[in-house]
Amino acid sequence: MPHEYEKDGAAIYLHSFATIRAEADLARFDADEEQVAVRMIHAAGMVELAPHIRFSPGFVTKARAALEGGAPILCDARMVSEGITRKRLPADNEVLCTLQAEGIAERAAAMGNTRSAAALELWRPHLAGALVAIGNAPTALFHLLNMLEDPACPRPAAIIGCPVGFVGAAESKDALWADQPVPCCIVEGRLGGSAIAVAAINAIASRKE
Amino acid sequence: MPHEYEKDGAAIYLHSFATIRAEADLARFDADEEQVAVRMIHAAGMVELAPHIRFSPGFVTKARAALEGGAPILCDARMVSEGITRKRLPADNEVLCTLQAEGIAERAAAMGNTRSAAALELWRPHLAGALVAIGNAPTALFHLLNMLEDPACPRPAAIIGCPVGFVGAAESKDALWADQPVPCCIVEGRLGGSAIAVAAINAIASRKE
Repeated sequence: MPHEYEKDGAAIYLHSFATIRAEADLARFDADEEQVAVRMIHAAGMVELAPHIRFSPGFVTKARAALEGGAPILCDARMVSEGITRKRLPADNEVLCTLQAEGIAERAAAMGNTRSAAALELWRPHLAGALVAIGNAPTALFHLLNMLEDPACPRPAAIIGCPVGFVGAAESKDALWADQPVPCCIVEGRLGGSAIAVAAINAIASRKE
Repeated sequence: MPHEYEKDGAAIYLHSFATIRAEADLARFDADEEQVAVRMIHAAGMVELAPHIRFSPGFVTKARAALEGGAPILCDARMVSEGITRKRLPADNEVLCTLQAEGIAERAAAMGNTRSAAALELWRPHLAGALVAIGNAPTALFHLLNMLEDPACPRPAAIIGCPVGFVGAAESKDALWADQPVPCCIVEGRLGGSAIAVAAINAIASRKE
């Protein structure tokens, strides 16, 4: 006997988002933030993510305006750049991941840092006004914060700080939240990852659910 | 003042895996399973994943032998296929995701199913002996199980059943676990996702930590 299941993508989204809104405590978010948070929770498959999500004031507005103005999206990992739904982007925005660029391993060795951090050096010409999404590597987020300590470094419009894991993830997100070089969104603690970062981007890119 | 943080990738892995082994209850796994489970927990950033991971007998051995024998890896989403670390693969294995293939939207409409499910119809010539990794769509896993109800459908070597979310994820993984058409690994319940599926593949591909 074949398994019976819901096969209508639109119905699946509708039911999923209704379940999240019924179960998660979203009261502290404004309307724009709520929509982003719901999609992040959806990607994680856990309503328990809600209390860990933080938005700085104006983050969604700033990030959305950047995308509507044609800003590029800079990603630390290909799982982030590949997850972005291109047809949701308001201005056919460029999506850039420099992790596999020529010479990154050598650059990392020379810097005494990870490839994820070294790859950000190639972001400099694209950084002004960009939407930054870090969904994997704490070292990338730490390196970005250190880059931004230089007043001559171009400023992105907004930062999604969502690295995951057991070493540096919580610390790098705490550092972003403390520094606030530009409006940002974080998932505090160990939780995070590419799927959650992608969900935030997809929600910022379009209000469509 | 620049932020100070661990910049050595090898040290980060070592410390991460040690933390997981100190905090997670891994006693019910055998040695091969433990290594896969640790990497899945690492990707999720949560030791609370451990009790949700299930391996059927012989899964790791069967899946690893398939990769060592040159089997392709069939993925339901590009976040899965793009996340696999190519240099860990033992036989330069082909990694296939058919979700963006020509005509999938039309095929989905004709089938009355999602694009994720329709994409699996293109797996048929590659399915015999393959390692299947479903890290996103419950509909893909349900459709695979229905395909495998036909005795004429080629059998994969093993299935990683790891879709995530609020509609069909738990149900499709329960169905895989009940059917057991081939050895499989699941994350029961709503949790799952591309990063966890990728971590399982990367661990099966190589014992290197």
